[in-house]
Amino acid sequence: MSEEAKPITATAPPAAAPAAEGAPAEGGAEQSKKGAKKAEAKAKKEAEKARKAAEREAAAKASGAGAAAEDLAKDNYGNISATYKSEAKRVRLEEITEQDVGQLVKIRGTLQNSRMQGAKIAFFQLGKGVETIQGVMAVSPEGKPISRQMVKWMGTVKLESIIMVEALVQKPLEPVKSCTISGFELHVQKLYIVASAPETLSVSVATASRAVGCVDEEEDLSKAAEGLSVQDKDAVPVAHLSTLLDNPVIRKRAPVDRAIQDIRNEVQYLFIDFMRGKGFKKFEAPGLIATASEGGANVFELPYFGKSAFLAQSPQQSKQCEIAGGRERVFCIGSVYRAENSNTPRHMTEFTGLDLEMEIEEHYHEVMHMLEGVLLYIFAGLEKNCAKEIELVRSIYPSEKFLLPADGKEVRLTFAEGQKLLREEGPEEFRNVKDDEDMSTPQEKALGALVRKKFNTDFYVLDKFPLVARPFYAFPDPENPEFSNTYDFMMRGQEILSGGQRLHLPEEVEKGMLKKGLDPNSPGLKAYVDVFRGAGVPPHGGGGIGLDRVVAWYLQLPSVHLACAYPRTPKRLGP
Amino acid sequence: MSEEAKPITATAPPAAAPAAEGAPAEGGAEQSKKGAKKAEAKAKKEAEKARKAAEREAAAKASGAGAAAEDLAKDNYGNISATYKSEAKRVRLEEITEQDVGQLVKIRGTLQNSRMQGAKIAFFQLGKGVETIQGVMAVSPEGKPISRQMVKWMGTVKLESIIMVEALVQKPLEPVKSCTISGFELHVQKLYIVASAPETLSVSVATASRAVGCVDEEEDLSKAAEGLSVQDKDAVPVAHLSTLLDNPVIRKRAPVDRAIQDIRNEVQYLFIDFMRGKGFKKFEAPGLIATASEGGANVFELPYFGKSAFLAQSPQQSKQCEIAGGRERVFCIGSVYRAENSNTPRHMTEFTGLDLEMEIEEHYHEVMHMLEGVLLYIFAGLEKNCAKEIELVRSIYPSEKFLLPADGKEVRLTFAEGQKLLREEGPEEFRNVKDDEDMSTPQEKALGALVRKKFNTDFYVLDKFPLVARPFYAFPDPENPEFSNTYDFMMRGQEILSGGQRLHLPEEVEKGMLKKGLDPNSPGLKAYVDVFRGAGVPPHGGGGIGLDRVVAWYLQLPSVHLACAYPRTPKRLGP
Repeated sequence: MSEEAKPITATAPPAAAPAAEGAPAEGGAEQSKKGAKKAEAKAKKEAEKARKAAEREAAAKASGAGAAAEDLAKDNYGNISATYKSEAKRVRLEEITEQDVGQLVKIRGTLQNSRMQGAKIAFFQLGKGVETIQGVMAVSPEGKPISRQMVKWMGTVKLESIIMVEALVQKPLEPVKSCTISGFELHVQKLYIVASAPETLSVSVATASRAVGCVDEEEDLSKAAEGLSVQDKDAVPVAHLSTLLDNPVIRKRAPVDRAIQDIRNEVQYLFIDFMRGKGFKKFEAPGLIATASEGGANVFELPYFGKSAFLAQSPQQSKQCEIAGGRERVFCIGSVYRAENSNTPRHMTEFTGLDLEMEIEEHYHEVMHMLEGVLLYIFAGLEKNCAKEIELVRSIYPSEKFLLPADGKEVRLTFAEGQKLLREEGPEEFRNVKDDEDMSTPQEKALGALVRKKFNTDFYVLDKFPLVARPFYAFPDPENPEFSNTYDFMMRGQEILSGGQRLHLPEEVEKGMLKKGLDPNSPGLKAYVDVFRGAGVPPHGGGGIGLDRVVAWYLQLPSVHLACAYPRTPKRLGP
Repeated sequence: MSEEAKPITATAPPAAAPAAEGAPAEGGAEQSKKGAKKAEAKAKKEAEKARKAAEREAAAKASGAGAAAEDLAKDNYGNISATYKSEAKRVRLEEITEQDVGQLVKIRGTLQNSRMQGAKIAFFQLGKGVETIQGVMAVSPEGKPISRQMVKWMGTVKLESIIMVEALVQKPLEPVKSCTISGFELHVQKLYIVASAPETLSVSVATASRAVGCVDEEEDLSKAAEGLSVQDKDAVPVAHLSTLLDNPVIRKRAPVDRAIQDIRNEVQYLFIDFMRGKGFKKFEAPGLIATASEGGANVFELPYFGKSAFLAQSPQQSKQCEIAGGRERVFCIGSVYRAENSNTPRHMTEFTGLDLEMEIEEHYHEVMHMLEGVLLYIFAGLEKNCAKEIELVRSIYPSEKFLLPADGKEVRLTFAEGQKLLREEGPEEFRNVKDDEDMSTPQEKALGALVRKKFNTDFYVLDKFPLVARPFYAFPDPENPEFSNTYDFMMRGQEILSGGQRLHLPEEVEKGMLKKGLDPNSPGLKAYVDVFRGAGVPPHGGGGIGLDRVVAWYLQLPSVHLACAYPRTPKRLGP
């Protein structure tokens, strides 16, 4: 950054930096280089221009207002001063009414678009939150409040800058279709830059507002582009998912991302509502634990004051401890971690779990019913509360309506029934699947398609998994101990929840560990068994819902990473 | 565990195990040893008894019901069978009404108390959730449904076992004062053990229901006991905090713990309510990050697929990224981590943060006002919604009413005003405190006492901290750049929130880093600055509320660990 640029850095940032860092810029490296050179030249020009403006300003200050007769509007634009004050009324875009017409208002927002009409008028779009409004800056006959210089300057303000606008609210000649606020526009009197965007954006909001071209970290975007029609190629460029994730600030400015995050929040709120209504108590499960919570592999380990700590792979231990402590029904929401080197659109190393655990009175299907209940409540709530957001996402990532079982009646298959269906009606390659082997992802998807055809639902439960496919704490099916009182919940053929009844007697827990080749006397596992030795523990069960997956599969997004604000994968730790 | 004990392990667990593990048992090591021997002998006896009972049962099954004429009630008690079924109506304690009188009901709960009245009647207390009810088991004239043997057996059932009771609801001769349900009692017909507690509990629920004797990890409980009166010494033993934390299942069964956790939940719900009402959007901040979020020390580091990852010390980076992405107002709730080797009742290595961040329109006091607003909303909500729970906690941990500023008017002092007050009216040792040095904990507490006296409030804001005492992202006070637009919020003289305005221009952020001796070009910090280079970022500020501290200091608990379900300290990673 050059020294002379400093006072006005907001208008002359180091445009070439993002390309130099290897951030995947749109349009490939060559274009980036060209762009960088161009940008450099432009930046120099800008800096020079701004320096002159600063000089003018300084001179004006020194000699009083009269000295700057050449630009009568000189105080009405430029970088905002640290001591900026204004009597204009601050309004929120969505709050503008007929009564504001003719009034002077001030609004700070994002410059989302701008175009010059000749040398005397600039049109632009100001965005704040989900709202946008049209702004007009026209040279005044007497040169103030708007001068020719000011309009010219407006053409140089970078898109995605934060600007402060003081303007008269007016009614446009005809409704402004391109903005969410179509019945009003802003006739600028003053306009200042609060924080400038860089000369060139790493990726445009327009691109971030399109469906990503490909989601696989290894895949080359050019391959995805090959499939595009000529029209599509000419349109706004498509970005690789990783480009969006590398540029979270731009990614977040795209309405589709906002809509996805709003839907994600609604899922959580609905979850909490339902849980509280059913008498569940919230609690916080620790992230740092003394032993691998699922008893083995794929766990992050870290040095902890001369010992080792692990990151919780699930809140399993603490959920069960809550039940043992007499809490009856509990839930928790938090990060869980998997040190799995899986680089697929379905995996993350950190994800948000919506977990519950409850006492079983008579049968573990009470828990299953509770989990079906909360998910059906969430699906119904989304349709009702997020119709607009879902529609917006569908306009970018097309998906069919999420089908629910008719009459609110749940669709439940045992694992064995599922395998049978696959053998009898599934694709050729699954003709020999066995009842005592876990299902693969392709099998799950194939079964999901069969269930959809047969039962007209995208949501169903697979019950009674083979014991061998479940963790040590799974409760065996009393009638057939090769199987277990455990289930997976499926959305569009993919798992979003695992759960079941847990062993609740200490000697049974120990047996469960031994069956899995785990040593119940190892320090961490002994602490787990001790929970059940500490006092009598009632029968209980639960499940963990993957929040990111629920959002992603409900909306049929091409990657679970699109449902997460800051996805973590083996290759991605930031931003 | 002996082989012969196995079929009835529920009644004969290895009582000596907790002592052998070095868990600080009540009453010291000697007593533990004696207790262990006694327990061992008792356990052997029990095992023998149970073996005989099992033989009897087996014999009865083999030869039909007639063979067991000696005990006509033999099928009405013992360990519950895996295929247990009953036609009795299942009720929740709090749902019992006059209409149930004379009806046969079944209830599963915890055996919380039992005493024999001669050889023919046993009284006991059954607990479920927050409710308790009296049970009566009396020998029937004809020896069934209740036999002498059954009543005798009842005397052997371990406290804190889970039992299933089938009983007739009756009205007691006079109200049962010792139970929450005083107008009904249960006349047992059948009673089975679902899950037995151990022969001896590591710590009793009665002890867990008292205030802990001491909270310092290093301190010896005997010292605390020295201060107790003779009556107190004779009463239920007092436990060291660590004993409770080592036995979470018993800790959780104490009503005081349930009340604290309920209050903790209410704080969260009130926080979420207020945030949503003010247009804040929730988001999930990642726990795994690429660089120390506060720029330096006390951070946990872990191997991450050939690189290093860090555990977030705060959601600072992602909160600011949300604002940069145009989200306007955001909040998050989650674990944050500090690798600080502090073993005090105020510190944990993992705690729950209630964080918010928002755009500033005119002045950073908007943020301060929002934070004051949410905390005042929480305090008001607690008084209203948790009066019973607060009263219960106060009966164990006495505390004065939490004083709030009169008329809802906030009490705000600048840091300099606070130091002046300390110098002029504080204890001798603080007569020379300086305006440009951070405050120590004793200073904070002394100032808290002065503010309480002067302004009659336990809640106030300390504004305008010296810049040198704040992180690199703190916004300097435009009028006095030695100070900053940052604040701490205090409850009963202790900090529960830190926050302030953040630098929002990339060049300022870089300067801030350089001032703190940090390298803005180091990979992690560069990524942070890049957020502000990605597009224009509006002025913003926020704060992080320590949930555990709010609960602990509101209730004036002797340790923040009592407010947390699973506290983590340098010495404690479990349970």
